[in-house]
Amino acid sequence: MNEFRKAPALEVSEWFNTSVSLKLEDLRGKVVLLHAFQMLCPGCVSHGIPQASAIHEYYKNRGVQVIGIHSVFEHHDVMGKKALAAFIHEYRLEFPIAIDQPSEDQDIPLTMQKYRLRGTPSLVLIDQQGRVRLSQFGRMSDMQIGDSIGQLLAESKGSDVLESNDPSGVSTDKNNCNTESCSI
Amino acid sequence: MNEFRKAPALEVSEWFNTSVSLKLEDLRGKVVLLHAFQMLCPGCVSHGIPQASAIHEYYKNRGVQVIGIHSVFEHHDVMGKKALAAFIHEYRLEFPIAIDQPSEDQDIPLTMQKYRLRGTPSLVLIDQQGRVRLSQFGRMSDMQIGDSIGQLLAESKGSDVLESNDPSGVSTDKNNCNTESCSI
Amino acid sequence: MNEFRKAPALEVSEWFNTSVSLKLEDLRGKVVLLHAFQMLCPGCVSHGIPQASAIHEYYKNRGVQVIGIHSVFEHHDVMGKKALAAFIHEYRLEFPIAIDQPSEDQDIPLTMQKYRLRGTPSLVLIDQQGRVRLSQFGRMSDMQIGDSIGQLLAESKGSDVLESNDPSGVSTDKNNCNTESCSI
Amino acid sequence: MNEFRKAPALEVSEWFNTSVSLKLEDLRGKVVLLHAFQMLCPGCVSHGIPQASAIHEYYKNRGVQVIGIHSVFEHHDVMGKKALAAFIHEYRLEFPIAIDQPSEDQDIPLTMQKYRLRGTPSLVLIDQQGRVRLSQFGRMSDMQIGDSIGQLLAESKGSDVLESNDPSGVSTDKNNCNTESCSI
Repeated sequence: MNEFRKAPALEVSEWFNTSVSLKLEDLRGKVVLLHAFQMLCPGCVSHGIPQASAIHEYYKNRGVQVIGIHSVFEHHDVMGKKALAAFIHEYRLEFPIAIDQPSEDQDIPLTMQKYRLRGTPSLVLIDQQGRVRLSQFGRMSDMQIGDSIGQLLAESKGSDVLESNDPSGVSTDKNNCNTESCSI
Repeated sequence: MNEFRKAPALEVSEWFNTSVSLKLEDLRGKVVLLHAFQMLCPGCVSHGIPQASAIHEYYKNRGVQVIGIHSVFEHHDVMGKKALAAFIHEYRLEFPIAIDQPSEDQDIPLTMQKYRLRGTPSLVLIDQQGRVRLSQFGRMSDMQIGDSIGQLLAESKGSDVLESNDPSGVSTDKNNCNTESCSI
Repeated sequence: MNEFRKAPALEVSEWFNTSVSLKLEDLRGKVVLLHAFQMLCPGCVSHGIPQASAIHEYYKNRGVQVIGIHSVFEHHDVMGKKALAAFIHEYRLEFPIAIDQPSEDQDIPLTMQKYRLRGTPSLVLIDQQGRVRLSQFGRMSDMQIGDSIGQLLAESKGSDVLESNDPSGVSTDKNNCNTESCSI
Repeated sequence: MNEFRKAPALEVSEWFNTSVSLKLEDLRGKVVLLHAFQMLCPGCVSHGIPQASAIHEYYKNRGVQVIGIHSVFEHHDVMGKKALAAFIHEYRLEFPIAIDQPSEDQDIPLTMQKYRLRGTPSLVLIDQQGRVRLSQFGRMSDMQIGDSIGQLLAESKGSDVLESNDPSGVSTDKNNCNTESCSI
């Protein structure tokens, strides 16, 4: 068996979209996805954040907790709490978001340091036992993320985790194609 | 434990992109993804087939066998073997593709009937024991497909199926954003 | 003044989506856009044909006639009249489409030869006087096409061809952003 | 002949990406495209600004001057000069951008008021004589923008503004399709 690193505690100066501070140790039994971003990072805005929102939407009732971390390591003076609040409001983000605690003497904030992230966007997957299982800087495909989460979700379960939705009969619709599909 | 239906044998009149006929019973221990399509189905061409190609590309060395099934249920006379061969050539498809055996007295071909598919594109997931676990008509997100395959792959393994790629250190790149990301 | 070549007459064996044969000499005073394609050309299906449909939709009441030309120069036996009819039906194409008259002794059909097209998709713009003004093989941006058509439309008019839609007053909507815009 | 409104002078507190202040009266003979945006407007970031960059890229040597206007009417305190500078840097914007002069007593800045804009993104087209010819709030297609600019560019010219690039001969490439096209 591999040895996995226990996920370090999050260092947070402020939370958005949650009435309570989220702590990793309270999330045992769930898969946790950390999405580190900066509001002025173009790749975060164009694909990282929309992807995190899609993960939140798909998995929120399936045992996965998405947490955004605003890990500012540049342009600190224009990506403060008030700017982030406006950003979250205008982009209508719904998942919990934490401000990564700034360092007193370095540009890189504390959670980012502890997780050894290389930049933004970064994605970290923490398994149901609280261990770091994946840490990826840059773009990651939806398929790969789904695959990774699916595997982590399956670890705690017995076999047959995927429910069948094998249809019981043939549709009676008439031959017809639209842009999505052709039905019998 | 749920009862799952054993995947019916494929009924095939012709194979492309494989030197041998693929049989489901020879694929135990692998997850099998069937992608049913028609070459004149717009939704198949725009998203179903590109998605099947992406699944093949990502999973071909990860225990998943993608099989395309050309399940023609309309316009039979212009979607024959020769037309399909030209289509596969021009679209540069690389995964194995079977022509679903036409029925002698119905529009719907035999494999499509046995799997009770409702149209094209359809996607069927068969687990490592040869049982139908998912059957979906129409568009399915990459994330959901990845999640489903990840869960099926995890069933036969012990824990810790996902290898960690937690980075061992911080990058020394300078602050820099491109369209994909900002690095420290 | 430049010398422009008079657009050669179309050589057509069959028309779709029109009750009458279209002749270029009857279209003087209109800008004519020829879109040459093949139904088994991936680039045509993914971007050329959708773009031709968008041009037709935007310009059909603005003095522009879009004409599709099915210029088959390969796989002739599987891109015949019946296959094209199924393709037009399933893709719900609405603009007039001609089958380029096959050559008796060459792969390249007659209209394609006369217009010296290099492949599919190709786009030809014919001005209001019936002269070839642009002939482009491969992908062309919507902006460049709009620019070219706009210039050709403007040639026959006096100044002030573009109607103003300068708004007369400020909206009374409240501050509000959606994915498209933020209104005052 | 229609009566068009003379484009009001720009009210600007700061310029980026230009060593000199741009004045509309110095731009007679050019078509001017004003793109009003806010850096925290999602629709501006996802499509408006990329479109303005594409217009700048295509038309910068074709008689069109693109000018961005940062017209802040909400969240004023987090969209100041320094924040905008970081935004322009990270998004690598290259066209001239002006900060719309804030009003002393209203949320809406002065240029935005004078042009009666309804929100962001907005696009204003000014003809070669300095008159407002189009003002559009929200998304506008590339084709429509190209068409409008093409028409305005053509107004000052004689006929035959579009140079022909009718090819002089047939390619000798072999039959070959890629994702973009099929060549003869």
